[in-house]
Amino acid sequence: MSKVVASFTMSLDGYSAGPDQTLENPLGIGAKTLHRWLFDGADDNQAETAALLGHGAFIMGRNMFGPIRGEWDLDWRGWWGEEPPYHGPVFVLTHHQREPLVMSGGTTFHFVTDGIASALGQARQAAGDKSISIAGGASTVRQYLNLGAVDELNIQLSPMFLGAGERPLDGLQGVILTSTYARYTPLATHLRYLVSKT
Amino acid sequence: MSKVVASFTMSLDGYSAGPDQTLENPLGIGAKTLHRWLFDGADDNQAETAALLGHGAFIMGRNMFGPIRGEWDLDWRGWWGEEPPYHGPVFVLTHHQREPLVMSGGTTFHFVTDGIASALGQARQAAGDKSISIAGGASTVRQYLNLGAVDELNIQLSPMFLGAGERPLDGLQGVILTSTYARYTPLATHLRYLVSKT
Repeated sequence: MSKVVASFTMSLDGYSAGPDQTLENPLGIGAKTLHRWLFDGADDNQAETAALLGHGAFIMGRNMFGPIRGEWDLDWRGWWGEEPPYHGPVFVLTHHQREPLVMSGGTTFHFVTDGIASALGQARQAAGDKSISIAGGASTVRQYLNLGAVDELNIQLSPMFLGAGERPLDGLQGVILTSTYARYTPLATHLRYLVSKT
Repeated sequence: MSKVVASFTMSLDGYSAGPDQTLENPLGIGAKTLHRWLFDGADDNQAETAALLGHGAFIMGRNMFGPIRGEWDLDWRGWWGEEPPYHGPVFVLTHHQREPLVMSGGTTFHFVTDGIASALGQARQAAGDKSISIAGGASTVRQYLNLGAVDELNIQLSPMFLGAGERPLDGLQGVILTSTYARYTPLATHLRYLVSKT
């Protein structure tokens, strides 16, 4: 069965997104600094950057796909332009139905309205024996951890404090970690854990 | 001038102590698991265990010295028995005056009632050119970080979630980190940061 990997960047005070999320600043105040390792630290963090992609399927919350709330604006085709970096099926959790959106380069966004277990089932079918990425945001990561569906947790710990925002690791129930890896770079410390559930 | 080092063990969700602190369980529910690296992981974590001690002076909050609130019970001589592991001057932040308490092995507890800056000044005088440890708890660490008095932050990141308790890294203002080190052991990932202040 596919390995399920949840991965996110977190400030040292536990936030994966800042406050005041807007169209211009989709991850909120401070989020650009939070993710500096991806841009200014590209050379130091090649393995971890590559590990964000290359999965057989991806699952993300609706806010990670776009800033729209309520009914869909069908002109919105994601943050990534016509060729998103996923190159595979992406299952977007939403309460609002929408036809699958086929993009260039192999990415198709599927909109799942019947819950996180259904999205995971569809991702497993699509991924074959490749891994599945729980790509965020905070609430989606939390829900899959509490479901007991996550096998591995990858955290890019950013050396900063956000002070406010969303904490993916709040509200967990019975999630057990085994630490397996840490590597330091100036802009992120990479942590890896095996995950199980009581 | 003495280097000032703040050091604490933190769960992956950011807590350095659990809820429901009592005399029997001074760091609250879950704290024994939080600090397993100190006991069950002694072989793996020798350098970091040694780094908790060996400073020229120590500063701690009152709750770290004892469970007493309000006026002192003079029979209380700390959690550590007659020979505490500090072997040097320890400055305890409190609102209640008390004469210095001379213990075996070179530890003397000094009770400081005129604030954190005064305690730091006294610790600097006592430490000479040795380092000063901000030994906890959460509120004491936070106050010295916000004062801009901390040069180095050492965190022992425990692979667990506490879910509630005290978070030393909440409520910080203008604290800037430079990541300098990470090392993984099964029961704790050791993180080190240089600290500055805007």
